[in-house]
Amino acid sequence: MTELERIGISLDKALLSDFDTLIAKQGYQSRSEAIRDLVRQQLSQERLSDPRAEAVAAVFVVYDHHAAKLTEKLVGLQHSHLLHVISSLHVHLDKHDCLEIIVLRGNVGEINKVGENILSMKGVKLGRVNLVAT
Amino acid sequence: MTELERIGISLDKALLSDFDTLIAKQGYQSRSEAIRDLVRQQLSQERLSDPRAEAVAAVFVVYDHHAAKLTEKLVGLQHSHLLHVISSLHVHLDKHDCLEIIVLRGNVGEINKVGENILSMKGVKLGRVNLVAT
Amino acid sequence: MTELERIGISLDKALLSDFDTLIAKQGYQSRSEAIRDLVRQQLSQERLSDPRAEAVAAVFVVYDHHAAKLTEKLVGLQHSHLLHVISSLHVHLDKHDCLEIIVLRGNVGEINKVGENILSMKGVKLGRVNLVAT
Amino acid sequence: MTELERIGISLDKALLSDFDTLIAKQGYQSRSEAIRDLVRQQLSQERLSDPRAEAVAAVFVVYDHHAAKLTEKLVGLQHSHLLHVISSLHVHLDKHDCLEIIVLRGNVGEINKVGENILSMKGVKLGRVNLVAT
Repeated sequence: MTELERIGISLDKALLSDFDTLIAKQGYQSRSEAIRDLVRQQLSQERLSDPRAEAVAAVFVVYDHHAAKLTEKLVGLQHSHLLHVISSLHVHLDKHDCLEIIVLRGNVGEINKVGENILSMKGVKLGRVNLVAT
Repeated sequence: MTELERIGISLDKALLSDFDTLIAKQGYQSRSEAIRDLVRQQLSQERLSDPRAEAVAAVFVVYDHHAAKLTEKLVGLQHSHLLHVISSLHVHLDKHDCLEIIVLRGNVGEINKVGENILSMKGVKLGRVNLVAT
Repeated sequence: MTELERIGISLDKALLSDFDTLIAKQGYQSRSEAIRDLVRQQLSQERLSDPRAEAVAAVFVVYDHHAAKLTEKLVGLQHSHLLHVISSLHVHLDKHDCLEIIVLRGNVGEINKVGENILSMKGVKLGRVNLVAT
Repeated sequence: MTELERIGISLDKALLSDFDTLIAKQGYQSRSEAIRDLVRQQLSQERLSDPRAEAVAAVFVVYDHHAAKLTEKLVGLQHSHLLHVISSLHVHLDKHDCLEIIVLRGNVGEINKVGENILSMKGVKLGRVNLVAT
């Protein structure tokens, strides 16, 4: 069970009123939850700016599965010792294109390097690295 | 088979030399491939800036699976008629936290709205919407 | 004088401790100030995502001042009726390149359109639109 | 005079056609110019990801000029030996708020640190660091 601490903060009335409107629209049920999320995002962003930080990432790859040997290369990469792939998900987008999402652990610097390598493979149309959590 | 067209472009010598260095580092085997990727990213970014554009998105959710009814809510959401969920992937991050990646189709505006709703659920620690492709 | 309201929020002890460390490093003197800034950024981001929102923006342009007529074009643009340019700042970066920062008012959609136009001018090397405030 | 080199690249016909439409809308007069800009942005982004890279930055600060001593602090900061401020621009946004844009040189890491310090000052409502060029 996580232990909660209650703190008091001061905010301009007008700012608070705008914030209440926004979080109601977003579906929050309390200010505490909304502020917790802002704090968590801020901390997460800070941590992930350090190349040595441990992270979990999801790498997106949109590619043409007719591209010669690309599927083999992507599978090979996932089984290499360099990466700690946890899981992956494959989606058929249309007749040509597939979306593959590869979830992996590693440090931020390595993960970004892997992302560049994947994006530069012949047949890969779009690629993106999403650092998710530490 | 996609049909290729060959075009000629002019670039400053110094810029081209820096670009060659960068793409070699990234692993590209030709300038054409690297420029194709830049063009594709640019087009994709442009398209996804329109709220009415059809898109495939991956929604990331990091949450505490002990949070009351959150798992049910997330599953419920995925089976609602509002969303066209294609697939999802679940990863155990540690004793408390799970990562769920939900791949869905819809228009950009709806997808962003869903993302806000998920992020505001009690127990959800981090959430992010990634528009992947059109 | 802005009127302050004091509210209480609950945060996990561990999250709070990490947040305290971060904001001390950033130089904040109280949690209230740091949280106010997070709330303000969130609201600002939300507002600026609406193309019809009124905004103040700073447009950056890095350009080669030898490029034929570019300076005239940029000055012309600033005096056109389409834009409400408030002020601009010009910096010599090196023998060739200048940085011009143009502060203007308008709605978000128009401002982004202007940014695209500037970026596409011959001789402009880099351009970026920064929505600053509403 | 910058020396140009002409290169040939191959692109899918459909991709090229979409790109032509986009750049016409943006106002480009040739593919070469549009691709040059994409290449420059990519190189610039790569360079600015290195904390030791030399950069020119524009720091935005929106602040309440009634805040005690903030103006003095900002001026003091600009005259400190830590920063190489080139120029600055001040805009009155409304009765309370000012926008100050400070253009400075330094390495990316130092510049980001300065940005954090400014944002954390009492009375500063929004702050952002924009790395502009190397």
